[in-house]
Amino acid sequence: MPVEALDNELTEQRLFQLNEALNSGMFVHVRHMLHDMPASDVALILESSPPKTREVLWQLIEHNQAGSILEELGEELKDSFIMNMSPERVAKATAGMDTDDLAYVLRSLPDSIYQQVLQSMSSQDRLRVEHALSYPEDTAGSIMNNDTVTIRPDVTIDVILRYLRSRGSLPEATDTLYVVDRKDAFLGGIALSDLLTCDPNLSVKAVMNLDLEGIPVMMEDTDVAQLFERHDWISAPVISDNGKLLGRITIDDVVDIIREDAEHSMMGMAGMEDDADTFGPVLKSSFRRSMWLIINLFSAFLAASVSNMFEGTIEEFATLAILMTIVPSMGGVAGNQTLALVIRGIALGHIGKSNSRWLIGKELAIGFLNGVFWAAIVFGSVWMWRGDILLASLIAGAMLINMTVAGLSGAVIPIVLKKFNIDPALAGGMLLTTVTDVIGLFSFLGLATLFLMQ
Amino acid sequence: MPVEALDNELTEQRLFQLNEALNSGMFVHVRHMLHDMPASDVALILESSPPKTREVLWQLIEHNQAGSILEELGEELKDSFIMNMSPERVAKATAGMDTDDLAYVLRSLPDSIYQQVLQSMSSQDRLRVEHALSYPEDTAGSIMNNDTVTIRPDVTIDVILRYLRSRGSLPEATDTLYVVDRKDAFLGGIALSDLLTCDPNLSVKAVMNLDLEGIPVMMEDTDVAQLFERHDWISAPVISDNGKLLGRITIDDVVDIIREDAEHSMMGMAGMEDDADTFGPVLKSSFRRSMWLIINLFSAFLAASVSNMFEGTIEEFATLAILMTIVPSMGGVAGNQTLALVIRGIALGHIGKSNSRWLIGKELAIGFLNGVFWAAIVFGSVWMWRGDILLASLIAGAMLINMTVAGLSGAVIPIVLKKFNIDPALAGGMLLTTVTDVIGLFSFLGLATLFLMQ
Repeated sequence: MPVEALDNELTEQRLFQLNEALNSGMFVHVRHMLHDMPASDVALILESSPPKTREVLWQLIEHNQAGSILEELGEELKDSFIMNMSPERVAKATAGMDTDDLAYVLRSLPDSIYQQVLQSMSSQDRLRVEHALSYPEDTAGSIMNNDTVTIRPDVTIDVILRYLRSRGSLPEATDTLYVVDRKDAFLGGIALSDLLTCDPNLSVKAVMNLDLEGIPVMMEDTDVAQLFERHDWISAPVISDNGKLLGRITIDDVVDIIREDAEHSMMGMAGMEDDADTFGPVLKSSFRRSMWLIINLFSAFLAASVSNMFEGTIEEFATLAILMTIVPSMGGVAGNQTLALVIRGIALGHIGKSNSRWLIGKELAIGFLNGVFWAAIVFGSVWMWRGDILLASLIAGAMLINMTVAGLSGAVIPIVLKKFNIDPALAGGMLLTTVTDVIGLFSFLGLATLFLMQ
Repeated sequence: MPVEALDNELTEQRLFQLNEALNSGMFVHVRHMLHDMPASDVALILESSPPKTREVLWQLIEHNQAGSILEELGEELKDSFIMNMSPERVAKATAGMDTDDLAYVLRSLPDSIYQQVLQSMSSQDRLRVEHALSYPEDTAGSIMNNDTVTIRPDVTIDVILRYLRSRGSLPEATDTLYVVDRKDAFLGGIALSDLLTCDPNLSVKAVMNLDLEGIPVMMEDTDVAQLFERHDWISAPVISDNGKLLGRITIDDVVDIIREDAEHSMMGMAGMEDDADTFGPVLKSSFRRSMWLIINLFSAFLAASVSNMFEGTIEEFATLAILMTIVPSMGGVAGNQTLALVIRGIALGHIGKSNSRWLIGKELAIGFLNGVFWAAIVFGSVWMWRGDILLASLIAGAMLINMTVAGLSGAVIPIVLKKFNIDPALAGGMLLTTVTDVIGLFSFLGLATLFLMQ
């Protein structure tokens, strides 16, 4: 109940104390501090520390605590720790993990270590994880746990209550018991709250919820997340093609997917991988970002070669060079606004065949309206600044063209990319900027050549 | 259990059928279709429809269904519907809502209607909502519900079980009963799963979880969301400064906050409001985006005025104009990568006083490394293209300067904005682009003037 203990300030304070203790070499003290913290807090501290501090801290963490901390870490950091652990330690650390997390860890191991870790596991864990590994990544199967509590339809609630009492405890985040027949076919579920409030003499069949929907095991995890969000589920059963109950998905894993998904869009649009580690080593970070920069360099040289086509015009009128960055810049911003809106709409499942044409039309209209408005503003500004009404008209015309194109391509690019199964958050921004840069420069310098060079 | 019923294809299909029915004027049929769908699906269909279709559909929705559909809608669309409803209809629609959603609806009403809606409510609803409205928006208080089930510490579990059976049902997403004393002071909680598995002869005191932490009612909602994520909570009690139990927050509201938060960063960085409505009307959308464009216009004219300082140089060497867009463009992309990383780090609570200096140093180092690498690439490309080694050296020098500045400002800008309580996702991108444009042009044209104009 300590109210203050919930504040983020605390992490800040703990980080400070830990750093102090580390710097003065009080390793035993640090070890005690780490031991007394919940795994999620230790994970947060590791995520917030530079590489060197991380390594020292990781050494000081007790082996039996390692597994639960690994579960809470971001992907990139988790991978880097696992890579440096001995197969035995990995096996020990993962012994108590949820099946889905365990499968994740194994998936990220190099083949040689993978086999060794499997060998070091108890046969029960091995069976469990081999099952989970049989489903492809990013499907419902890969994030499901098999810790379901199942009951039969033809017993009374009273029998169930006595069974639960003899069982002694339930898996975490259990809010529903699942009803299956003799062949494990999924029939429905009973919420714990219903178990507690219904008449114990009724049969399971009479109380169970038949409307409970099972998630197909091969459904994409982002679709699973949308279902959870839409229906406010806490957990949901996962079923096979032939209706057998395979396991369940819990809201905590779904929250991770929602977070990752949303981050993916944001980081992707800025040309970063979504699991990029904020405090990762310099050289590695530098290398991983270069992909995006090389594409941008091509785009920039493409734009430069457009200007190059009009070298003669620029030579004669240097003022053009001064103003020529304005049109691409405005087009880029306007196009990116549309792009962000459409990418989010696609992620939320709002955009499909039936309405994408309407949406493209709407964004084209906004682009044109924006174009008229900003053409007028730019006309006024340039006229005032350079006192040249022809120049002002030229830039206004280019602005109208580029803003309209920006609106159109901001909507069309992500929808088309999606159709070809290319992630619009990753490729969309760069494609769009290339379009708005090229069209912006071409329309401005082209109009100028047409009207100034006679 | 219909497996296919879970697919997103279904919404697509339903949208199509609805549109068909609407277009052929089969309004009674549409009304039936809407009536048979869960509120969350109707909400999704409304979100995915153009304004005109929305209005028709909304007219066809039965009054008693309106409330639960409103709860599921995005903010912008929800507001627009509520604005056009009569106070009586708002009162009727909101009658069954959760307190937090009810408070949200009332907050978005104009004052005159607000009073009328309050008057049309039952006195019980009025009391409930006035309580909720007393907490500021974006605090734990504003997203909490007061449908907690509380028990006393000194009775036996058996008494509780009998009480629950006589009660007949529990509020949605109840996973824990809260233990309070006579003065409503929060003492702890018992999970439903523990109620089902423990010995019924034990007292509540003996079984209850004392480690359960209460959320301070004034805590920011984003901090609440971080706690839920870190601790995998399904619900959590909210307590007052003096330790009284006030209500509880459930994971479904937290999921909304996580989604909104992540979207806020993504949309904000592209200069869009995060609740922007994908299918909103053209004029409104156009107007709302202009704020960002006007700031960008200032930034673009600022950059143009930098080029203007070097008009003489450009007049003499038109090639400079052709190449001068490359340096700002690369700086912008590199800076935005750092910016996205740091904004996400701030949102996740990874960045604080103790590590921000290290982070800035790291990003400066990456910027410099990037600078060296891309300076070399650009040197080679420009030398090959224009065959001018001096020109190639000039652009390489400018690239080194601008990439270093980009890395530094990508980290410094969001951290400083955060310190002044300005949202880095909103203001960061534009500030950064202004810096990289100005420094990029200034360093390239400045170096050129220095070395070419003698």
